[in-house]
Amino acid sequence: MQTRLNIDEPNSPTSAYIEIDLSALANNYQQISKLVAPSICAATIKANAYGLGLEEIARTLVNSGCREFFVSDIFEGIKLRKILNHNHYEIYALNGLKQKKEQDYTKYNIIPVIGSMSELAYYKKSSMYDNSLPVAIHIDTGFSRLGFDIEEVASIYKENINIKLLMSHLANADDLTSKLSEQQLEKFLNISNNFKGIRKSIANSSAIHRGQAYHLDLVRPGISLYGCSNHNQSQIKYEQVVKMFAPIIQKKEVKKGSTIGYGASYLATKAMTIALIEIGYADGIPRSLSSTNQHAGGHFYINGVAVPIVGRVSMDLVAVNISECKADTNVGDYVEIFGTNQNIDTLAKNADTISYELLTRLNHRVQKIYKYD
Amino acid sequence: MQTRLNIDEPNSPTSAYIEIDLSALANNYQQISKLVAPSICAATIKANAYGLGLEEIARTLVNSGCREFFVSDIFEGIKLRKILNHNHYEIYALNGLKQKKEQDYTKYNIIPVIGSMSELAYYKKSSMYDNSLPVAIHIDTGFSRLGFDIEEVASIYKENINIKLLMSHLANADDLTSKLSEQQLEKFLNISNNFKGIRKSIANSSAIHRGQAYHLDLVRPGISLYGCSNHNQSQIKYEQVVKMFAPIIQKKEVKKGSTIGYGASYLATKAMTIALIEIGYADGIPRSLSSTNQHAGGHFYINGVAVPIVGRVSMDLVAVNISECKADTNVGDYVEIFGTNQNIDTLAKNADTISYELLTRLNHRVQKIYKYD
Repeated sequence: MQTRLNIDEPNSPTSAYIEIDLSALANNYQQISKLVAPSICAATIKANAYGLGLEEIARTLVNSGCREFFVSDIFEGIKLRKILNHNHYEIYALNGLKQKKEQDYTKYNIIPVIGSMSELAYYKKSSMYDNSLPVAIHIDTGFSRLGFDIEEVASIYKENINIKLLMSHLANADDLTSKLSEQQLEKFLNISNNFKGIRKSIANSSAIHRGQAYHLDLVRPGISLYGCSNHNQSQIKYEQVVKMFAPIIQKKEVKKGSTIGYGASYLATKAMTIALIEIGYADGIPRSLSSTNQHAGGHFYINGVAVPIVGRVSMDLVAVNISECKADTNVGDYVEIFGTNQNIDTLAKNADTISYELLTRLNHRVQKIYKYD
Repeated sequence: MQTRLNIDEPNSPTSAYIEIDLSALANNYQQISKLVAPSICAATIKANAYGLGLEEIARTLVNSGCREFFVSDIFEGIKLRKILNHNHYEIYALNGLKQKKEQDYTKYNIIPVIGSMSELAYYKKSSMYDNSLPVAIHIDTGFSRLGFDIEEVASIYKENINIKLLMSHLANADDLTSKLSEQQLEKFLNISNNFKGIRKSIANSSAIHRGQAYHLDLVRPGISLYGCSNHNQSQIKYEQVVKMFAPIIQKKEVKKGSTIGYGASYLATKAMTIALIEIGYADGIPRSLSSTNQHAGGHFYINGVAVPIVGRVSMDLVAVNISECKADTNVGDYVEIFGTNQNIDTLAKNADTISYELLTRLNHRVQKIYKYD
């Protein structure tokens, strides 16, 4: 097994780290790819590959057979093009067409995902159009986010534009009780009938598991590649890609009646042993994992034992109650923030959020360690 | 007025940015310094100066007369020493003594803040002790976080150690109804009587405004330097240091009955115009600012008009209702996330958190623009 330490700023990391299993990533990609074949499996690696590192994630996916990538914007597209320096890898910039950047789209061969009449007009007046730079057309079928209204799209298929992909995005593909996804798919198929010979895509991670009807020509998984977000109905057993650890820097006996942490919001109702862990909200551990005596917060794991957070998460530190495992716990030991004992989705739920937010908000002072079996 | 664009990774920023007013920072420092004189005013610039950029913040503070700095750990200390390359600037690493780094403390002249018997024992066996490297002694007077217990400290003053500073930290200095701060101060003063001729410090930003009794030899403001966290009882009128802006990338008419965003969690009960702003939780905008029809979320400002967030904050985008100001609002306009119309504390409150978390979790893809009048 090969492990590699990748430190953005050699002098800045604390000792907290995330471990990223690139074999698991490759396996997840290949499983999805097999499930949806002959549809193409692209990959959504926006926001620095959900915080996991654009370069390492992209290279692993390329080695797994991926050829089409979705990023947030032109800036991330340029970065990715420098990594995947060959035009047979397609790069789509999701956040529309950024004005004054037209030369970069052409130079780096980035496909703008166009979603409004004003963007389209800008495209047609630009050198991108003259160079026949391909575009993706984004249709809003009920998400009320980026994308053309259905009525607007009706005229576009008649235009002489190099359309590489027709796409839409589902609002709640993970909600199997809602009919919205079916309605969105139906609207999308109706309008896309006009766009003959153009590839179509509507499926994010969750939509892939709604069935083959959603796969169309291309699927665009994001979070499931990274092994997060439980897909209960999934035909695939996703492997966990990310685990997180941080060290104990002090062990402490707290007397009955003492308060713990900021705001004195947690009262020790009996004597306890706590460990101070060198990680905090400045690293990306949500402050909403804090606990009070009335409200349980999150917990981490030490040697398989759940250790609850006591008091408030602070900027650089978290206190956990280690009374149940204090004999085996020492300064310098690493605590599992999420990993084998609790996945990131569980931790996210305890913080009233989702794994996507946890991942993308991990601070760059958290080291990334990549491993590949 | 001089403005400067500082981009960590030239090809990666989106167009969201924070504007950092270094004159306001200098002014805040100088006001505190004047208030507490003859006590020394140090500065807490841990966690990359609360996310605002260690180098620019440190240089500005030095130019304002600051000579002593508190950072999170040895790694940040080294980074700061390379910026302030002269030994007459003192750098304290708050998170205790990191083992196996002893040579770096000496080489870069970083003062470890020691808070446990095991750290002290490690220090005394190391070359740091042989070199008489100064330390700070951290006493836990009721915070149950880092620091020696009172009982442990009783023996330390007899030891032959180069103690530069004796310090403690208050749990809830901002809560004027609580007696805990007074109790902590009293405990600290009692024990510190044993440490003759050694400087003492207990005051963070809030404690400074509890009165002169808390100033002792040295105060260590953090958040108030950055103009955040309202100090209602403050004798100082802090200037706002940070403002944040992001561009509109699409303007959209939403029909009555449509849902907006992920989870279809917001229903347009009447026709409305929304703007899609190119910023999301991957940039550090908390997902907890999301709204539903039942629950108001956060809001931003366009030309002085409050525009409420509609639906969920997503990874790269936020939708706001601009029905009230649609005529004056165009794609490419910048929205105030926080700034003149709403300070960061208000936004933080709407996200159920505090300005500290908002600031330190801003992602590095948000540009920083420094200005100095």
